[in-house]
Amino acid sequence: MSRILTGIQSSGRPHLGNILGAIKPAIKLSEEPGNDSFLFIADLHSLTTIKDGALRRDYIRAVASAWLAFGLDTTKNTFWRQSHVPEHTELAWYLNCFTPFPMLSNAHSFKDKSERLADVNAGLFTYPCLMAADILLYDANLVPVGKDQKQHVEMTRDMASAVNHLVGEEIFVLPESRIDERIMTIPGIDGQKMSKSYNNYIDIFVPANELYKVIKKIVSDSTPLEEPKNPATDITFQLYALLADEAQVETMRQNYLNGGYGYGHAKKELYELIISQFAEAREKFNFYMENEEALERELRNGEEKARAVASVTMERVRRKLGYN
Amino acid sequence: MSRILTGIQSSGRPHLGNILGAIKPAIKLSEEPGNDSFLFIADLHSLTTIKDGALRRDYIRAVASAWLAFGLDTTKNTFWRQSHVPEHTELAWYLNCFTPFPMLSNAHSFKDKSERLADVNAGLFTYPCLMAADILLYDANLVPVGKDQKQHVEMTRDMASAVNHLVGEEIFVLPESRIDERIMTIPGIDGQKMSKSYNNYIDIFVPANELYKVIKKIVSDSTPLEEPKNPATDITFQLYALLADEAQVETMRQNYLNGGYGYGHAKKELYELIISQFAEAREKFNFYMENEEALERELRNGEEKARAVASVTMERVRRKLGYN
Repeated sequence: MSRILTGIQSSGRPHLGNILGAIKPAIKLSEEPGNDSFLFIADLHSLTTIKDGALRRDYIRAVASAWLAFGLDTTKNTFWRQSHVPEHTELAWYLNCFTPFPMLSNAHSFKDKSERLADVNAGLFTYPCLMAADILLYDANLVPVGKDQKQHVEMTRDMASAVNHLVGEEIFVLPESRIDERIMTIPGIDGQKMSKSYNNYIDIFVPANELYKVIKKIVSDSTPLEEPKNPATDITFQLYALLADEAQVETMRQNYLNGGYGYGHAKKELYELIISQFAEAREKFNFYMENEEALERELRNGEEKARAVASVTMERVRRKLGYN
Repeated sequence: MSRILTGIQSSGRPHLGNILGAIKPAIKLSEEPGNDSFLFIADLHSLTTIKDGALRRDYIRAVASAWLAFGLDTTKNTFWRQSHVPEHTELAWYLNCFTPFPMLSNAHSFKDKSERLADVNAGLFTYPCLMAADILLYDANLVPVGKDQKQHVEMTRDMASAVNHLVGEEIFVLPESRIDERIMTIPGIDGQKMSKSYNNYIDIFVPANELYKVIKKIVSDSTPLEEPKNPATDITFQLYALLADEAQVETMRQNYLNGGYGYGHAKKELYELIISQFAEAREKFNFYMENEEALERELRNGEEKARAVASVTMERVRRKLGYN
């Protein structure tokens, strides 16, 4: 059995790129019988970059609603807000004291962020200690991450080893990272990687007319309607191919190659596919967005389950470090 | 009325220097009718330098017992272990995200410690954020500190102002530091400042024969017994003068000046004075050291009182930052 830990960013409303690249694969993994998934909304991490409270509240709500909308089973798995389980920051402080200053100074992501961001705060610097706490609290043995996060999992192992070595006991499980090389890059409406920061994303949860408006903005070349078009280079086709079944994809490919089929037609088909394929998810998303109590109930239930595990780990750590 | 916050180091058993320089003045301050003192054992800070759990547990116990032995009124005031109130590390993380990285890099105490210590960990670096949390959680307006801590109180004000400014509301009270210029330096048995790190301290709580042994080790010059001696330069006399009443001091001074009075006599008088003056404190100290339950009861009661205040502050912070 694998105890899998997944941190969910809450620095924006989930878009199609997040859904296909993160939410659906994580939910699929959580459904495998041998797996026990712990998925948390990393809202404490979001404070390193987002200071606006109202915005954070909205994002947390949208992120939680999206995961529930795609059918995350919160009975089998554990789903919670990081900020509602105080053991995260508590263990993070302990780990701070076991983390050599140069290890954090040399972290790629801190170097990168301190060059890019105006607000270089201490939270960005000690972020790896909080991330290590997120992982170690739940005895996770598997952490699926993007390539940029691999070093953080290695630092987590270093911190865990330092503490285990000191206390002469395996109080922390050493996690393994899993980089999913097959992770697809979802193109945004301008062809770059779909991302909130590029403002090129498709939010599938907005009202149908707004959704259609965004899809109509997908960049295409100026080949006239009657001429054949290249499906391989067209963004609308690429997005359609990620969602449609094989037969549908083949039909659209032929339409492109035959000519007499405009980008407007393709966009309409993409729009209709999204509306039909995500009908249930859109409905559920709206349900949770409109029923705060139902959403709270799910999250609080997850928080109780998370604390039950985290507090056992902390008890172990406290006893060994002389805090009991 | 002043809300006074005092952090109590727990990196050793309290010695005579701590008692005269910190414990007794703080307790005196806490007894003034207009004052409301919050005194906490800074056991989370101790993790930056002490990793041994058994040692930490002993120190925490000895420190708590010493403060109670000297009559700290835990009904009027609030006395707790920092590690037992999770709001400290929680707010510390929030403040990390409002603290510019260079502010911490330029802190005197970090520069100093990174030159002196072998283990330069991230906890040493972010220490000022935890200290700011300690202060801001309790709406303290007065923080008595040594000169070396003044900058940390200024950093606390900076962090508090940054958050207040962001949320457009005075959610944090800006604390003032109070440097007590009159604070006496207590000489150790070698004449340097009494300090655990110089191993020159007098532990008044050890059994009488051990105490006498240490006092006999107080350094003196080699003036023969029969000759007059200089009270102004003698360490035994200085220590005696800190504890004895005026008449006693005058008598010993005359003995020194007259000659025929040896350092051994003076040491015996100092020993007897300590035993009689601290008879009650020694008894109470031993009581708490031997009755863990009684000690726990006092501390748990303080922890409940501290959390009642800290959780209200955190609720205010969480609401404004979007975590409620």
